[in-house]
Amino acid sequence: MSNSTAAYGALKDRFDRLAALQGAQAVLHWDRATMMPEGGARARAEQQAALSLIAHETLTAPEVSDLLASADATASELAEWDRANLAEMRRVHAHATATPADLVTRLSRQKSATEMIWRKARAANDYASLAPALDQLIELVREQAAAKAEAFGLDPYDALLDGYDPGRRAAEIDGLFAELEGFLPGLMQEVMEQQDAGPGALALEGPFPVALQEWLGREVMGFLGFDFAHGRLDVSHHPFTGGVPEDSRITTRYDETDFTRSLMAVIHETGHSLYERGLPEEWRGQPVGRARGMTIHESQSLLFEMQAGRSAAFISFLAPRLKAAFGGEGPAWEPDNLLRHYRKVGPSLIRVDADEVTYPLHVILRYRLERAMIAGTLRAADLPAAWNEGMKTLLGIVPPDDANGCMQDIHWPSGSFGYFPTYTLGALAAAQLFAAAKGAHPGLEDALAEGDFSPLVRWVREHVHGRGSRLTPDGILLAATEEPLGTAAFRRHIQARYLS
Amino acid sequence: MSNSTAAYGALKDRFDRLAALQGAQAVLHWDRATMMPEGGARARAEQQAALSLIAHETLTAPEVSDLLASADATASELAEWDRANLAEMRRVHAHATATPADLVTRLSRQKSATEMIWRKARAANDYASLAPALDQLIELVREQAAAKAEAFGLDPYDALLDGYDPGRRAAEIDGLFAELEGFLPGLMQEVMEQQDAGPGALALEGPFPVALQEWLGREVMGFLGFDFAHGRLDVSHHPFTGGVPEDSRITTRYDETDFTRSLMAVIHETGHSLYERGLPEEWRGQPVGRARGMTIHESQSLLFEMQAGRSAAFISFLAPRLKAAFGGEGPAWEPDNLLRHYRKVGPSLIRVDADEVTYPLHVILRYRLERAMIAGTLRAADLPAAWNEGMKTLLGIVPPDDANGCMQDIHWPSGSFGYFPTYTLGALAAAQLFAAAKGAHPGLEDALAEGDFSPLVRWVREHVHGRGSRLTPDGILLAATEEPLGTAAFRRHIQARYLS
Repeated sequence: MSNSTAAYGALKDRFDRLAALQGAQAVLHWDRATMMPEGGARARAEQQAALSLIAHETLTAPEVSDLLASADATASELAEWDRANLAEMRRVHAHATATPADLVTRLSRQKSATEMIWRKARAANDYASLAPALDQLIELVREQAAAKAEAFGLDPYDALLDGYDPGRRAAEIDGLFAELEGFLPGLMQEVMEQQDAGPGALALEGPFPVALQEWLGREVMGFLGFDFAHGRLDVSHHPFTGGVPEDSRITTRYDETDFTRSLMAVIHETGHSLYERGLPEEWRGQPVGRARGMTIHESQSLLFEMQAGRSAAFISFLAPRLKAAFGGEGPAWEPDNLLRHYRKVGPSLIRVDADEVTYPLHVILRYRLERAMIAGTLRAADLPAAWNEGMKTLLGIVPPDDANGCMQDIHWPSGSFGYFPTYTLGALAAAQLFAAAKGAHPGLEDALAEGDFSPLVRWVREHVHGRGSRLTPDGILLAATEEPLGTAAFRRHIQARYLS
Repeated sequence: MSNSTAAYGALKDRFDRLAALQGAQAVLHWDRATMMPEGGARARAEQQAALSLIAHETLTAPEVSDLLASADATASELAEWDRANLAEMRRVHAHATATPADLVTRLSRQKSATEMIWRKARAANDYASLAPALDQLIELVREQAAAKAEAFGLDPYDALLDGYDPGRRAAEIDGLFAELEGFLPGLMQEVMEQQDAGPGALALEGPFPVALQEWLGREVMGFLGFDFAHGRLDVSHHPFTGGVPEDSRITTRYDETDFTRSLMAVIHETGHSLYERGLPEEWRGQPVGRARGMTIHESQSLLFEMQAGRSAAFISFLAPRLKAAFGGEGPAWEPDNLLRHYRKVGPSLIRVDADEVTYPLHVILRYRLERAMIAGTLRAADLPAAWNEGMKTLLGIVPPDDANGCMQDIHWPSGSFGYFPTYTLGALAAAQLFAAAKGAHPGLEDALAEGDFSPLVRWVREHVHGRGSRLTPDGILLAATEEPLGTAAFRRHIQARYLS
């Protein structure tokens, strides 16, 4: 065994240990959002800070640089996946070493503290109680962005973005978002006019008990292929997918007057979960075996929620099951009427409940605001006014309060800046992927009409999930769809679904 | 600041970090027993092994020895609690350094694997599927016992025992258990004859829905002073108390044909939880702030379950509430009849459901068997026969199968050897403590008759909980009751309750 082979082996051992630590962090994070009593927050913050610091130390120990240099020397002798794995090790290491250890600890504590304050502040619609903690957090994130910017020779916002979506740059997003802003407002108006002229959606009469909604959510997860021996469904303020590939935990939230949103949240998170479960098993614990950033991740959730989940084919399968589950009666429960509910387009306040036509406008607002916060030109105290003004410009409506405005999302209070644009990039990617999957499997929609997602799941396992992090995000997309990331497929999808 | 003051400060920082790591481990452990889907076991084992190893490294790093030596040099200048804290640091460090790092990892993995196998094996009543893993685990525990024995100059079993109950030795247990064996079988016969001669217990007609039992459990936890902002109640195979003092998580299990056992398990675990919550807050994270071993811990659960929870006073308070909760009718729901249920004495198969008179016999059986396993004279393959023979000798009954025999407890499959005797030592201590508390507060039982546990809780907070690990286990007992640990108070308690 050569020195460089030994070095690469030692790196793999270290990344296995890092993966175990990150898995432990994922459990603590999930527990905090779903199970932890409020009084556990301080102790949990200490636990999370300790694990963050240890993970950071594991990555940034001086011997890692030496091992990387030694392994690099003969990287060309490695097999293809190992070479990609080594490249990912280098990338992860570069992100870690760019952030000083004491900043990792301060960030971890401030994220935990701000998130707990946000939970109360949002419930009480009391933005003033959140602003000071948010300002402190923004300052720490800016410190991190500056450190990474210097290390990578990037703009600070790009340096943060790169952590969520490897290789992505704001200049590219600016171009894509400008295209969307070019056609979306007009499309939205056209769709709204057409919907106003047609028959309105008949009300679905509730209440819809939580227990029934949960039962139905599990049913639908089963249709999508969720494996309950390797995962759970629970409740949290903000739906998310947590845990590890072997133990994938999704959450939703319930509203007894409206089952439609919770059910689609379940399908959305199941899409994320299927991605994690489908990552290449032989590379578990190694960087190349991880999910390829948040744009590809979101493409998987939206593929199942927006593309397949709201297709006429699947809704026709779902309708009689919803009717039976809730004891519904009459034409309101027919597929056509359910489609009217699931395809209603119009400006709204809450991003996670927005339709797919207006959703990018919510993201564009957040993208602009967070770039200003990272640039230091927008302080927490000025966020509500900037938010409300942006909502007015982009969507034509103004939130009645901050709970329905700038406090609605967990991302900023939990320290995630540079994450929001990946939602819309993911929507663009999902449209491309669904078109490609249908091209490869002409019977795919017939299968959905029978509740059978397996052709779609098989296709994404091969073309997306199974690739892990061997290709770049755009490399995965290009290999799967033969097109780079763009707005064309998304635009065709919107036109076909809403204006045909 | 002198060098030794600096050294002690550096040790405190390190033990804070260790406490955060152990808190994270506690969450992973709780989650595995309550929430984790079966398929998550392998990944969880890796997470737990990584954290065990890191905790071990944190304690055994070479600089810790140096810091301890430096701090020791001027220990006499420290305040009393700090001196006790330093002594505890030394004790914890000695236990850790006695076990080699690779053994820590192998033990952690084997414990996780064996416990998961046990879950299936017990459910399927298939001891053969458990035996090989149990043998491997016993070998590793013996390896650990031998290493600690050599380091401490103790017998291997004593070395394990010391980890659960600091300072406890088998020779002392032999003496106490011999006294119990001297009078318990005769007492048991006498009680059974008296109970047979009296009116039998009227049946409590079920079913008792899980949701109602859970609601009632929470009610009763409230009477005891459980703070739900700092804790939870959940379900697991084997009831336990987990988490950390600020986030104390208890579990129970439900049987829809019998509510009585689950409810007492809730009271039992609440007793453990109150101890954790009542530990001195200013010493959180430091060794002297921890609970003082498992004998004192069990004395707190049994104080609430056996001493206070089954007192005539509290049962008279509980009876009308049980009756109302389950819609019960007639004389079966009167306090006298409930007491007959809660005080029924006789040999039984399952330790956790045993009455307090026969319970020590269950423990004596396990104590003998685990001493033989650690001595290397009893292998897993021979355990069922030895178990059944011991049950016949001690309790006069033989289990129909291993699920109700040697597979009933989680302790051995999860690697806990040297733990069982503390259950009975705790029962002895609980009898002493309750007698002392009643002596100090003559109105204590009147308060229980009104569901008011606060006089008892205040007394144990002062005399037990608040002491942390500043005294030895026997030191706590002596200070609180003016007597060393013995069997006399327990014997008086049994005679007064069952033969008066």
